Amino acid sequence: MSLKGKHLLCTQDWSLEELTKVLELAVDMKNERWTDKYAKVLDRKTFFMFFYNPSVRTRQSFEAAATELGGHAQFLEPKSMRLKTKKSAGETVEDAAKVMSRYACGIGMRILEDKVGAYGEGQALLEEYAKWSDVPIVSMAHDTFHPCQGLADVQGMWQHLGRENLKGKKLLQVWGHGALARSWCSVQESMLISSRFGMDVTVAYPEGYDLDPKVVEATKKNCEANGQKFEISHDPVESYDGAHVVYSRNWMHADTYHDGEMHKAEEVERAMKLTDWICDEEKMKRTENAFYTHPMPIDRGHEVSDGVASGDRSIIYDVAENRLHVQKAIMALTMGDM
Amino acid sequence: MSLKGKHLLCTQDWSLEELTKVLELAVDMKNERWTDKYAKVLDRKTFFMFFYNPSVRTRQSFEAAATELGGHAQFLEPKSMRLKTKKSAGETVEDAAKVMSRYACGIGMRILEDKVGAYGEGQALLEEYAKWSDVPIVSMAHDTFHPCQGLADVQGMWQHLGRENLKGKKLLQVWGHGALARSWCSVQESMLISSRFGMDVTVAYPEGYDLDPKVVEATKKNCEANGQKFEISHDPVESYDGAHVVYSRNWMHADTYHDGEMHKAEEVERAMKLTDWICDEEKMKRTENAFYTHPMPIDRGHEVSDGVASGDRSIIYDVAENRLHVQKAIMALTMGDM
Amino acid sequence: MSLKGKHLLCTQDWSLEELTKVLELAVDMKNERWTDKYAKVLDRKTFFMFFYNPSVRTRQSFEAAATELGGHAQFLEPKSMRLKTKKSAGETVEDAAKVMSRYACGIGMRILEDKVGAYGEGQALLEEYAKWSDVPIVSMAHDTFHPCQGLADVQGMWQHLGRENLKGKKLLQVWGHGALARSWCSVQESMLISSRFGMDVTVAYPEGYDLDPKVVEATKKNCEANGQKFEISHDPVESYDGAHVVYSRNWMHADTYHDGEMHKAEEVERAMKLTDWICDEEKMKRTENAFYTHPMPIDRGHEVSDGVASGDRSIIYDVAENRLHVQKAIMALTMGDM
Repeated sequence: MSLKGKHLLCTQDWSLEELTKVLELAVDMKNERWTDKYAKVLDRKTFFMFFYNPSVRTRQSFEAAATELGGHAQFLEPKSMRLKTKKSAGETVEDAAKVMSRYACGIGMRILEDKVGAYGEGQALLEEYAKWSDVPIVSMAHDTFHPCQGLADVQGMWQHLGRENLKGKKLLQVWGHGALARSWCSVQESMLISSRFGMDVTVAYPEGYDLDPKVVEATKKNCEANGQKFEISHDPVESYDGAHVVYSRNWMHADTYHDGEMHKAEEVERAMKLTDWICDEEKMKRTENAFYTHPMPIDRGHEVSDGVASGDRSIIYDVAENRLHVQKAIMALTMGDM
Repeated sequence: MSLKGKHLLCTQDWSLEELTKVLELAVDMKNERWTDKYAKVLDRKTFFMFFYNPSVRTRQSFEAAATELGGHAQFLEPKSMRLKTKKSAGETVEDAAKVMSRYACGIGMRILEDKVGAYGEGQALLEEYAKWSDVPIVSMAHDTFHPCQGLADVQGMWQHLGRENLKGKKLLQVWGHGALARSWCSVQESMLISSRFGMDVTVAYPEGYDLDPKVVEATKKNCEANGQKFEISHDPVESYDGAHVVYSRNWMHADTYHDGEMHKAEEVERAMKLTDWICDEEKMKRTENAFYTHPMPIDRGHEVSDGVASGDRSIIYDVAENRLHVQKAIMALTMGDM
Repeated sequence: MSLKGKHLLCTQDWSLEELTKVLELAVDMKNERWTDKYAKVLDRKTFFMFFYNPSVRTRQSFEAAATELGGHAQFLEPKSMRLKTKKSAGETVEDAAKVMSRYACGIGMRILEDKVGAYGEGQALLEEYAKWSDVPIVSMAHDTFHPCQGLADVQGMWQHLGRENLKGKKLLQVWGHGALARSWCSVQESMLISSRFGMDVTVAYPEGYDLDPKVVEATKKNCEANGQKFEISHDPVESYDGAHVVYSRNWMHADTYHDGEMHKAEEVERAMKLTDWICDEEKMKRTENAFYTHPMPIDRGHEVSDGVASGDRSIIYDVAENRLHVQKAIMALTMGDM
């Protein structure tokens, strides 16, 4: 099984075997981080990172990943590209992708809700790049999915629950209030991949904060395929019952988009009222001594209390570190000389 | 013959022998791209890239070039430099160049028409840097010239016409309409270098879109020196007759600058009316089954039709790739350990 | 004595023995710049550079330093980080520092007066990062100190006066007029470190341009400890008498900050009137044929005349080059595999 040349827009597009291969390599890369074992995998190769949206973790971890494999990641912002849009002359995606394929071994792209006119346009742009590019396109988070985060989440559960023990464990993905009107991408990716790896999934959120119905449907099917449970809850407290892992995160209401625009101020006002929706020590007591995780950056005091985020069951920094390892593994397998 | 330490502002400043040495190395570097042959040429050395203007290709290809030679290119934007100007206190070019020479093995600069008060000021700035710098200054495109593009063009013709077959072949450089009010630099460089390498040159454009008379004069002399033909045409159709290579490109009218400023809106209005000036399949039929080239990014539908740009005689992606190879060769010969 | 893991916010926090170790290594790294001796010290490691303020020298020299040691420095601007502030939701320093420690071997930070509400807040921010980070925090210049510049200054004096000859030599640090309202950091660091290394220190400036009293006090004590002289002068001419090294620099009046804001226009107006305060050939005649230095970039015609800055006793470019060497030494000792 070779993954060379494969695009990665969502983990759901890859087989369980392929994802497992990435994770196993990520685990080995963590252990061998400073040995020479993987030091030449991207030797003198260039990876392009396109940031339509700014980023903390993602830029740092992708650029470090390329460096640790012996290559180099270029930080590119599309505002400096004269790309064709409906309003202005410029280069087509066809031309941009074809030329970039001559220079780079792979292309990462990040484009979230606030940079597109409607949910799904980010996914469409990545598909357009994937159509023309001769080298792998890797999502660095887009409006619908965030495959690298999803893989880092699973690597974190392997670390803390044990690789063989995910089956039948309850993952609670719970909405948190706050002023950030966040993307759906991380939570949707986590639902999809956690259910592939055998977990029971409960998604809890206030009425109206529904996610993409197609993603919910796919997660259900993932669960059904192996006899796992899938549940949607609107109870900010009881949903914690029996959880083994709690993953809290703010995300925006589907109505944030209307009339072709994102209405962030409206959404912040709505979300900030829902103060019951915070992961705190009281609620964590209802769980099976659950681990706490979050894709970071965390909005402390809204999504989660300081006590939980900095508590001894929090695995947030390990999961953040895993971003580096899974990204190295993805680059190595799809773009590198292994 | 050593090129170590030599500045490159325009190919016309270098001998034919020197340019040939660069191209021969570029061809070898293309073949040996992933072997160790050139892996240490810029080992741990730093190349500075100054972008007064943003760029797609140029930044990507220079940064990748440094990486592939074992070095690193820093992406620098002068807005973050406190340089002295007529209006504000700051550092002189003398001081900036002298200090940068202590850190870097070479300095690339990109400054186009819209960042200067009048045509020629970009060239003057590069000459000022070259005066003070102890390391090579390389143009990454400036208002008058674009030597790396010119070399990449010739490498493309070597690839597709055969190195020995350029002599007496007709290169048509033809103006294209569009809304981009482009620099003269690429087309002027191509006229100069193509005539050095033995081609007959026809430059075709609407009345009034004259280029720099000094460059036209130098191109004529280049042609006369070896008995080649030089022609200026204002016919958007018949100029194609007998061409072996067609190079289409928009460029701005000389009047775009007046009263010390660039008047882009005026120029776009003027240029967009000249819709006869597009390279399309009909016109290409008049040629000797010509190759199609363009320095990219292309403004499809204005400079060239989709059919020609994506057609089987188009060599645009190969020429774009050559930017990488010639830039590696230039860096290796002027800054590297060869 | 190991420096591994140590933060560097100010040279005063380190022992003389530790600083000497850095300088000795910097001298050796200058000699061995292109040999393999230090080529693997940061092999494939990542250093983060946070620029709250833009920079010329600092970015160039730190990024080149990492490259020359086999690693890579990422250029990061906090505007692209969603950090928590009084006004907006975002990530805490605790979380940012903890995660960055998983990716990088060290973190550099630059934050000057105009990015903080009051003098000292930059120092407080660096201390907050140092509190949470598991990897070294290195100041790349902040409102109070600039340790890398101070070390580069001393390396320059070692080069030109001789390492054994600093004792009892007079260093004049003299204010220069100009429109830049510069930070106190470089001059304060130089006072502290020069007095540690045995020099007599005279600080000369117009009435009212007092520096941080705590730094003045510490410099006095440094001098007293070894029987050296410390002097404050308000004479723009006689202060030159007997100097062995003259260091001119503009800095802002303490009143530039009031009502929680920086009032730059006021300060520029005040400073530009004090035209006696320029280091020129006439004044240099009063010295013991002193060397001239400056942390750069220089504001020629205000801080210093062209004749002095470009004269044969000027060591400005050597000192600027030393930034590279001391930074490599600091990174090697605190973050590297030595």
